[in-house]
Amino acid sequence: MTTQELIEQIKLKQSFLCVGLDTDLEKIPHELLKEEDPIFEFNKAIIDATQEFCVAYKPNIAFYEAYGLKGWKSLEKTITYLNTNYPEQFTIADAKRGDIGNTSTRYAKAFFEELNFDSITIAPYMGKDSVEPFLAFKNKHTILLALTSNAGAFDFQTKKVEQQELYKTVLSTSKAYENSENLMYVVGATKAEYLKEIREIVPDSFLLVPGVGAQGGSLQDVCNYGMTQNVGLLINSSRGIIYASTDSDFANAAKEKAKQLQQEMQLELEKLN
Amino acid sequence: MTTQELIEQIKLKQSFLCVGLDTDLEKIPHELLKEEDPIFEFNKAIIDATQEFCVAYKPNIAFYEAYGLKGWKSLEKTITYLNTNYPEQFTIADAKRGDIGNTSTRYAKAFFEELNFDSITIAPYMGKDSVEPFLAFKNKHTILLALTSNAGAFDFQTKKVEQQELYKTVLSTSKAYENSENLMYVVGATKAEYLKEIREIVPDSFLLVPGVGAQGGSLQDVCNYGMTQNVGLLINSSRGIIYASTDSDFANAAKEKAKQLQQEMQLELEKLN
Repeated sequence: MTTQELIEQIKLKQSFLCVGLDTDLEKIPHELLKEEDPIFEFNKAIIDATQEFCVAYKPNIAFYEAYGLKGWKSLEKTITYLNTNYPEQFTIADAKRGDIGNTSTRYAKAFFEELNFDSITIAPYMGKDSVEPFLAFKNKHTILLALTSNAGAFDFQTKKVEQQELYKTVLSTSKAYENSENLMYVVGATKAEYLKEIREIVPDSFLLVPGVGAQGGSLQDVCNYGMTQNVGLLINSSRGIIYASTDSDFANAAKEKAKQLQQEMQLELEKLN
Repeated sequence: MTTQELIEQIKLKQSFLCVGLDTDLEKIPHELLKEEDPIFEFNKAIIDATQEFCVAYKPNIAFYEAYGLKGWKSLEKTITYLNTNYPEQFTIADAKRGDIGNTSTRYAKAFFEELNFDSITIAPYMGKDSVEPFLAFKNKHTILLALTSNAGAFDFQTKKVEQQELYKTVLSTSKAYENSENLMYVVGATKAEYLKEIREIVPDSFLLVPGVGAQGGSLQDVCNYGMTQNVGLLINSSRGIIYASTDSDFANAAKEKAKQLQQEMQLELEKLN
């Protein structure tokens, strides 16, 4: 999917919501456990219920890998279901990969070709030649970790590197990578005040913002500081939507939660005009 | 496996060689492609041929993920083969994972429990709460990226963070993590001169050194600067061993290459006494 197509979807649906599929067998409704593939059945129900209110889905790959072969199969079925039934949805493999050149190419093939995701999250620690293999794929997007929303973000990301914080160095350095137009960035919503400075370095890039919902963080703050003329934001909610209810009405509860977020987003989008 | 058991294996075999299983369908002997699971058959032959000269195996997870479900199956069969037939081998999932707390726990379960690897490589960018979930597993080892051997290492890792290079900050900060006795570190062999300074920060930790062999780097230099009384080194060679020949004699060629490295290592170990 091109960035332009993503922007069109956002404007069409008046939503920049991404639903995180952190699907956990211990948290999904008990009745689903009798199904052959409970994870896929849960995802399918969540996707069908929420798709009109969101523009992106983000399976968290760890949750699938934790179940080994079976989990990988659930992931394959989920992305195939999305690509077949809702090709207008932007898909994000939340994998946080990153390795030396030929290895990164392997990961890129796994997620961009084998599974046909539109994008993948990548850790920047290994630098240029660990990121560029992902950027080489046309109409695929590489979402680089800049400032994450967890407590550990203060261990290294906010430490000063030659005058500026490491996460800013990540932003500015990565802009010089080949095909950097395919870059997006992960920026934690718990630090909305940082968004202003981030926008000075990457004024146009799309930012994937986790941490609205269960992890806190205000939608309004994020939009005030981070929104661009082309929106430039994808805001993720995982647990807040998919576990809105753990009973048999889970899909409907997820729908209501997604709708509510979409309505809040619509108000923010109206400020753009 | 405990660190003590690893040290005993090293002393017994007079080797601190790790064989990297970066198994690539385009590089393995053509004749294997007719097998039902060419990747596993290749790995099995390589393991049987080299196991007497090495103490560790390191499948590079990207190479398996690139083949989707089939690749994941080959990985499962490979680690099961190792654990069943050569339980004395230290196994490393070269996965370079790292995510927020509950997600890292998922990855830890996938590799430490589901697949039963002894260790996993982890990227430090997200800090403490992304690393500690791995450290919580008893007799399992978390190999944190410090200084990698690729060109991109100079993008961030060697940048000065409050007086010292980022990779040193990673070393010193991580020492304060809970259960930090379960930490090892990845340190690229192309920068053997850095090892002296690294040893000042982590005098006893095991270092996993990639980059001897195809990527260059001198074994002697690494040992001069990095070896401790308990050896403290695992030196990896992937392509230099597993693709020593691409003909039907590949296993024997790998064996010869592994034997040669073991002999060089024995000379270094003799200097310890």
